[in-house]
Amino acid sequence: MNYIQSSQNSTLKEIKALHLKKNRDSQGLYFVEGIRFVNDAIDNGQVISKVIVSDKLEGLNGGSELIEKVKGVCSDISLVPEKLFKEVSDTQTPQGILAVLEKNQFDFQEVIEKGNSVVILDCLQDPGNAGTIIRTADAAGISAVLMSKGCVDLYSPKVLRSTMGSVFHVPIFEGLNITETIQLLKQKGYKVIASHLSGKNNYFQEDLTGRSAIIVGNEANGISDETANMADSLVKIPMPGKAESLNASVAASIMIYEIVRQKVM
Amino acid sequence: MNYIQSSQNSTLKEIKALHLKKNRDSQGLYFVEGIRFVNDAIDNGQVISKVIVSDKLEGLNGGSELIEKVKGVCSDISLVPEKLFKEVSDTQTPQGILAVLEKNQFDFQEVIEKGNSVVILDCLQDPGNAGTIIRTADAAGISAVLMSKGCVDLYSPKVLRSTMGSVFHVPIFEGLNITETIQLLKQKGYKVIASHLSGKNNYFQEDLTGRSAIIVGNEANGISDETANMADSLVKIPMPGKAESLNASVAASIMIYEIVRQKVM
Repeated sequence: MNYIQSSQNSTLKEIKALHLKKNRDSQGLYFVEGIRFVNDAIDNGQVISKVIVSDKLEGLNGGSELIEKVKGVCSDISLVPEKLFKEVSDTQTPQGILAVLEKNQFDFQEVIEKGNSVVILDCLQDPGNAGTIIRTADAAGISAVLMSKGCVDLYSPKVLRSTMGSVFHVPIFEGLNITETIQLLKQKGYKVIASHLSGKNNYFQEDLTGRSAIIVGNEANGISDETANMADSLVKIPMPGKAESLNASVAASIMIYEIVRQKVM
Repeated sequence: MNYIQSSQNSTLKEIKALHLKKNRDSQGLYFVEGIRFVNDAIDNGQVISKVIVSDKLEGLNGGSELIEKVKGVCSDISLVPEKLFKEVSDTQTPQGILAVLEKNQFDFQEVIEKGNSVVILDCLQDPGNAGTIIRTADAAGISAVLMSKGCVDLYSPKVLRSTMGSVFHVPIFEGLNITETIQLLKQKGYKVIASHLSGKNNYFQEDLTGRSAIIVGNEANGISDETANMADSLVKIPMPGKAESLNASVAASIMIYEIVRQKVM
């Protein structure tokens, strides 16, 4: 284990750089924090490029066990004073472990070819919504989450935290051209649906027992007209009460679980 | 309109005090912020006890119109320099309008008597989850939201913001004894269901076309054994994927919309 004493250390500088999307993109790396999240990364066979731990970690429940576990999968481990750890951490009260991971690489064509249902995020902006939808998609056994250009960055710490580890379970693609993606899905027999003000059928009146793709639009503006025109079907989520809209992750989750319901029933 | 120049002004002191639950409780008052939220309060006939506006408001889209509208429903309006406004605001970039409102009073027995479906929050802790569930309940036309003792405070600014105005639409009761509440609901013919690890039926296999009550448990611990034992039925939300759990507001919303689906179908 290396010992880091200076904030000018190259490992710490590298981690600080990964707070920015452009560096995560250029290096194909990102980081996760906390005992549970790093445990999840190891349990799900993620490639860990380096780990830093603070002197605080050993005193925490599960801390020592995790250090031993990390040693089995990563040779680049550094011990960092709590004060320096806090400088690179994204959280208010860090647990004292941070792992730099390689982004997963999936074959887009293959995932679509073999898949059964996908969720498309079209310019979704809120990190909590994005992470929560990924978590729901994972729970529901969705084959992939497809993020358009203009979405919040998947690898931002807040999105990652909201996925609660689901980022390791479900293939996720970023920076997609929404038009090309929908065209491909339609070619492959996916029924592409989106909730929309001009939707006619309620979402639960659509047959979703075959291949299906659900488009989730931007929180403020919904899906674009161009995207709406490409969908096989625009549906509505009935709102017999007074609220004018649902939270984006809630609306997405309700439609995702309609797929589960129809497949189980 | 009054002009406030000092941070020692009694109106500003009163609003600062309303940042604390104990003062909101003792005075039966709370506050909301922003052009949209104050507009919503007026449109929904809320009793507004006082309003402060900053010199910034007039320059914002809809600002001047809102000031005129406020004058029609509230006589205690104060103009406050932006600097002092920021001191009492709960938001990072305030829009320059804050209204102190009286809490709504509903007759619990009457709401339960006339209601058709309710959502019970049992020690729910996260403000975003609570607000989002209230918003979904409102959209779905749920008759009331019943919050147990130990839940996050409904009138905390973050819960209020997450409701997106639904706090004005749906009767919400706080500080309830969960045991007594469930007993009463059962007496009144509500079918009380909760998602639980030991649930047998999937949630969509329950008949929810009659009176129904959905219990939503704490984010970390779910519902207590005592509460589970009182439910008419424990159900499961199937998770064919790898995620072990859903976000609490997502799980609640999926079950709430199953009520809508069954009533519409």
